[in-house]
Amino acid sequence: MNQDYIVPNNWSIIEEGFEIDKVKSSESLFSIGNGAMGQRANFEEQYSGNTFQGSYIAGVYYPDKTKVGWWKNGYPQYFAKVLNAPNWIGINVVINGEDLDLATCEIKNFRRELNMKEGWYSRTFNVILKNKTEIKVKTLRFLSLDIDELGAIKYEVTPINSDAKIIFKPYLDAGIENEDTNWEEKFWETLDIESENNEAFIVARTLKTKFSVATFMKNNILIDNIKANIEPTNVKKGESDISFIYEIAAPKNQTVAIEKLGGYTVSTNHNENELIKAAKQVLEKGTTLGFNALLELQKEAWAKIWEMSDITIDGDVKAQQGIRFNIFQLNQTYLGKDSRLNIGPKGFTGEKYGGSTYWDTEAYCIPFYMATKDQTVARNLLEYRYNQLDKAIENAEKNLGFKNGAALYPMVTMNGEECHNEWEITFEEIHRNGAIAFAIFNYYRFTGDYSYIPEKGLEVLIGIARFWHQRATFSTQKNQYVILGVTGPNEYENNVNNNWYTNYIAKWCIDYTYEQIEKVNSDYNSDYNRIVNKVNLTKTELDSWKQVANNMYFPYSEEHNVFLQQDGFLDKELVKVADLDKTQRPINQKWSWDRILRSPYIKQADTLQGFYFFEDHFTKEQLEKHFDFYEPFTVHESSLSPCVHSIQAAVLGRMEQAYTFYLRTSRLDLDDYNKEVHEGLHITSMAGTWMSIVEGFGGMRIKNNTLHFEPRIPSQWKAYSFKINFRNQIIKVEVTQHETQFSLEGKTPIKVFVFDKEILVEPNNLVKI
Amino acid sequence: MNQDYIVPNNWSIIEEGFEIDKVKSSESLFSIGNGAMGQRANFEEQYSGNTFQGSYIAGVYYPDKTKVGWWKNGYPQYFAKVLNAPNWIGINVVINGEDLDLATCEIKNFRRELNMKEGWYSRTFNVILKNKTEIKVKTLRFLSLDIDELGAIKYEVTPINSDAKIIFKPYLDAGIENEDTNWEEKFWETLDIESENNEAFIVARTLKTKFSVATFMKNNILIDNIKANIEPTNVKKGESDISFIYEIAAPKNQTVAIEKLGGYTVSTNHNENELIKAAKQVLEKGTTLGFNALLELQKEAWAKIWEMSDITIDGDVKAQQGIRFNIFQLNQTYLGKDSRLNIGPKGFTGEKYGGSTYWDTEAYCIPFYMATKDQTVARNLLEYRYNQLDKAIENAEKNLGFKNGAALYPMVTMNGEECHNEWEITFEEIHRNGAIAFAIFNYYRFTGDYSYIPEKGLEVLIGIARFWHQRATFSTQKNQYVILGVTGPNEYENNVNNNWYTNYIAKWCIDYTYEQIEKVNSDYNSDYNRIVNKVNLTKTELDSWKQVANNMYFPYSEEHNVFLQQDGFLDKELVKVADLDKTQRPINQKWSWDRILRSPYIKQADTLQGFYFFEDHFTKEQLEKHFDFYEPFTVHESSLSPCVHSIQAAVLGRMEQAYTFYLRTSRLDLDDYNKEVHEGLHITSMAGTWMSIVEGFGGMRIKNNTLHFEPRIPSQWKAYSFKINFRNQIIKVEVTQHETQFSLEGKTPIKVFVFDKEILVEPNNLVKI
Repeated sequence: MNQDYIVPNNWSIIEEGFEIDKVKSSESLFSIGNGAMGQRANFEEQYSGNTFQGSYIAGVYYPDKTKVGWWKNGYPQYFAKVLNAPNWIGINVVINGEDLDLATCEIKNFRRELNMKEGWYSRTFNVILKNKTEIKVKTLRFLSLDIDELGAIKYEVTPINSDAKIIFKPYLDAGIENEDTNWEEKFWETLDIESENNEAFIVARTLKTKFSVATFMKNNILIDNIKANIEPTNVKKGESDISFIYEIAAPKNQTVAIEKLGGYTVSTNHNENELIKAAKQVLEKGTTLGFNALLELQKEAWAKIWEMSDITIDGDVKAQQGIRFNIFQLNQTYLGKDSRLNIGPKGFTGEKYGGSTYWDTEAYCIPFYMATKDQTVARNLLEYRYNQLDKAIENAEKNLGFKNGAALYPMVTMNGEECHNEWEITFEEIHRNGAIAFAIFNYYRFTGDYSYIPEKGLEVLIGIARFWHQRATFSTQKNQYVILGVTGPNEYENNVNNNWYTNYIAKWCIDYTYEQIEKVNSDYNSDYNRIVNKVNLTKTELDSWKQVANNMYFPYSEEHNVFLQQDGFLDKELVKVADLDKTQRPINQKWSWDRILRSPYIKQADTLQGFYFFEDHFTKEQLEKHFDFYEPFTVHESSLSPCVHSIQAAVLGRMEQAYTFYLRTSRLDLDDYNKEVHEGLHITSMAGTWMSIVEGFGGMRIKNNTLHFEPRIPSQWKAYSFKINFRNQIIKVEVTQHETQFSLEGKTPIKVFVFDKEILVEPNNLVKI
Repeated sequence: MNQDYIVPNNWSIIEEGFEIDKVKSSESLFSIGNGAMGQRANFEEQYSGNTFQGSYIAGVYYPDKTKVGWWKNGYPQYFAKVLNAPNWIGINVVINGEDLDLATCEIKNFRRELNMKEGWYSRTFNVILKNKTEIKVKTLRFLSLDIDELGAIKYEVTPINSDAKIIFKPYLDAGIENEDTNWEEKFWETLDIESENNEAFIVARTLKTKFSVATFMKNNILIDNIKANIEPTNVKKGESDISFIYEIAAPKNQTVAIEKLGGYTVSTNHNENELIKAAKQVLEKGTTLGFNALLELQKEAWAKIWEMSDITIDGDVKAQQGIRFNIFQLNQTYLGKDSRLNIGPKGFTGEKYGGSTYWDTEAYCIPFYMATKDQTVARNLLEYRYNQLDKAIENAEKNLGFKNGAALYPMVTMNGEECHNEWEITFEEIHRNGAIAFAIFNYYRFTGDYSYIPEKGLEVLIGIARFWHQRATFSTQKNQYVILGVTGPNEYENNVNNNWYTNYIAKWCIDYTYEQIEKVNSDYNSDYNRIVNKVNLTKTELDSWKQVANNMYFPYSEEHNVFLQQDGFLDKELVKVADLDKTQRPINQKWSWDRILRSPYIKQADTLQGFYFFEDHFTKEQLEKHFDFYEPFTVHESSLSPCVHSIQAAVLGRMEQAYTFYLRTSRLDLDDYNKEVHEGLHITSMAGTWMSIVEGFGGMRIKNNTLHFEPRIPSQWKAYSFKINFRNQIIKVEVTQHETQFSLEGKTPIKVFVFDKEILVEPNNLVKI
């Protein structure tokens, strides 16, 4: 944990002073993205210190050959890696014959800013080179939301203590490798390099997956902010890179700048033979507008996003900065325009874990996108799974031996194929199937749009119900159905029997699917007939589903009056986290795996995750009992843990605890709680931060097609506010220590419940409670 | 399985006819070794077909960087690999300008023979080359038992249909790689290459481990079996290889031969600066004796081994061939002269698994070596573990967080350090500790030599008892001690709670250690004081051990009246192997790991392993009950499985079943039951084959310092016989369908029990029962 790293500020992420050990962490924290592409905050100029260079294009991946120590039958042959893409941001800089390299010169007044309000990233600093030349540098970079194939950089240099010969060497480089390649293989081959005037293009193609990408740039030199119309003095073409050389003699105090437009056109969106043509069109659009106009459009586009999705917090700058950082990064990662895309756990900020889709999407991200975007965004996320249903069926059949259309969605995927390879996760963390079904339920609950279910969702539900039906086995000993050998959400237990969360959601999936089949049968009969024929569903099969669901076993302790996380939980030595030697934490960095497994320590909400999803199935007393039983054993070493606990602490009125969990979830990366921010950000858990305010403090729920709130406020805050897009009506909720205000953007009044009391919110009419 | 591969023969392994697809399998089956080195049956001449080249030196290993998909805390950084050593057997052959290569020419009358009685390997064949020359080839190779740094080859060529120009190119090559290198790294560096007349030497050193090895050769050309005193016409030195070229013009029907002596001198046995000097001495000894005398000595040496360890079976050639193959390979692998060595699971026949020491040594191999060798051999094997006690303590401390001298021996090792890296095995298959303690008990039971315990064994026992004491945890729910999260001998269940075998042997280890402490205290008091001071043992600690041992939990089913393999066993779907679709087997090649884990299928004896070790703790009725409960779920997909089941079936008088298991264990490799013999042989389970005759059919047991027998004979056999070296008295047991004969080599009469009836066997006086 590192609390003094980032300067508290309401709207910006700011780092002051240059710390060589923090460069990789800052590269993660100051990352920028526009949903279609993104990049770590690498320096434009050469840097000889430790750095993790990363630039990524949404949907462009590479199936790296799997690496394991001991192969097990069923492991996938390939692991779809988030693919490090060609570099277009590079601008090497030479001052009076010396490379500008922050690892080798004296640096003064170094400052970074990621302006979240306006969507740009900037650095300013002075350096004194070894040759004694002092210059001032200012850079500004953004990835356009309006033209999402385009990014722009302005790189300004001002000689301070003498005249200077300044050389800018903007370049494109397709000769890049992944940090985390399994076999140190190249993933790209360069097909074509072209240049013309101030423009250059490299067409490169990924091996195996054959994604073609044109990476491009266009450069302009400005002197004292006026376009200088300077042509490159030299163009250097390598095997997979191209650079231009611009030489400028700058008198002392004169600011010389290079504006570089760049980006990618990709074969997923264009004819692969016309990528350069498409790139030229993008550059023309960008050039016509110009850097300043592009920046203005960027500010407007972000203003629109913030207008809907901002959460304000008064009286607690760190909390404010935290929540905005989370919302900002979610929007940088995924904007929901394309149902082929999903929300990678590290977004565009790193490569770790690979794949772009985890159960995080359904369990954590969908609620955020449903409430802050148009409902098509959430629907696109659901359709992503529908589009991969065949692969999920194939996965269950080929790898696990299931039959009859049972579907097991992958733990990690890019294209529907499993790409994780640890048996205890790949084969056993099957609860992911439950979250995918839950998201369908949740989508309908929130949006009221039932059409998705007869059109697509029901087939997904049937595949999932079939999986659970076959995966449960009958225990003659218990005279009930059991689910053996699973890993629950708590990945600190593997291959356990009857994980309560898994059994519960399995039963729920079958019951819910059964109900939807009946409803589709009665209300959407032609869809029903189409689907039943397609998937070959019979009454006999449905009866046998019910047999399993109605006789599912749930481990329970009479002594503690709680459901047991799994059959063997009470045999453990139940030493609470508070009584654990602090030097032993985090246990995943200190303990061998067996020791973790036989400990009672819980990585993230497990039984409590079930209480979160199915809150209305249980009383508040039950929640309290389970929270009090499990939370003391929870080490929260998953980024997904604190948010659920924050929500439940708030529900239980334990505001101090809720606030502590809130800080932990919202500032996980900013304060680097888990000492791993250099690897990239935790994107998906950021949606959990949003939930912890809206569902936790705000107490928002949907019940019977109606919004409910139970607003609470931490004592540290003066006020907070958020907006919800509920079925195309936007409600703003503002909570202070004394009252809650509701206001409505829309035309028809809306009924909401506050602490179960009905209230009518009318358009443009503030309601105070 | 491949039953028609090897020609049945009492004393030899014979293959007739050349099958290109079987070359790698035959390379394993015809392997030779002399305890100090060994090699796969690779061809001397070049071969362009599929081959697995392997030559190995006992005790010379390399720590290959660990390869895993997902690193877990505690995994070892390195994996000690059995190291492929420089090749000294190579003799490329050119006939009338054409390379002799069995993959490219016509082959007639191909025959291999591994003569187990005399300890040599031979090939004979005719080939017609593409240039139409027909030649006859005969090769004979052996690794000397007398001079264990030396091997010898005689390679004869006779032109059949024309005169021929024959070129022999004997070579040494240190530029070899392991088949199974994790990172395709070289493990050897060449330090020196020297040659002189007909001799050559390469000194190479392993990277990291710095074992230096001189690989050497000396060549003689013979014409019509008379030494020709031909010098090489050319010597070619490469970076890490050297070859001599001998050119001979051979008239039709004249036999030209090369005799090649070769081998290794190793820095583990010589000063590393004098390896070539040592090699020259070896060559001089060999040359002085000459090929033929060396071969005679080889026959004598093997005759001596067979004199003691042979088992005869009359009336069943395949059974006879099987047991001799097992005994032969065990003796090729390990002769017990050096306590730094151990018995690798593949001996000198392959690289798979790595490491040289598994619990197989203690559980399976020691009984064979105790009964067929001098007792020092078994003691050397025990001392091997004593010498690695510090590493076992370090392993438990550093990786698993144990304290106070608790020792966890590694699952796989070369030098005492763990080199396995699958958490479910590395950290959880801890029952291995039990077998190591059991072997100490077993050694004393068999040899009567108690001295090992006060001198060394007790420290090992204390380290192991301390481990179990700490590893067991108290379950408040069960009000007993439990052992959570283990993998038992059945590796088809992982991370289970209360594996009965593990719990049972844990309790036994503590109890046995406690008793030995008391005995050493009373009978070897100075040892007692030395040890107690060294390991800092107190009465309080001993009491807390007893607390655990006396309150150990054992899962038990009242319904089935059996101990349960683990807590969750009865929740499984108990479909017997007989009812399993045959296309699904072997399940480890057909099923994903999770499916195997939640199935009831057992890889090898688990609960029954406990009944084997602790037979006298249970009644025969209990054994029968457990055998009938567990065997039907056992798939025997471990090479260690059939032998224990054969013994127990024999005990239960089920001779047909015992015989079936016997064939499976004894001919596992010869008939390639598991379709993997090309990877190497299953050496350690071969000792289990010996046990299945001596302990199974022969019913040999040691009770109260006395030999007991309960001889039974399969109906397929006329007779069988074996010898036992019991406390330096050699008893021969011959069993026919009608009677059992006992005879004694020794001076004092010995009392034995046959079916609990006391019999006196006197020297040189046959006793018939």
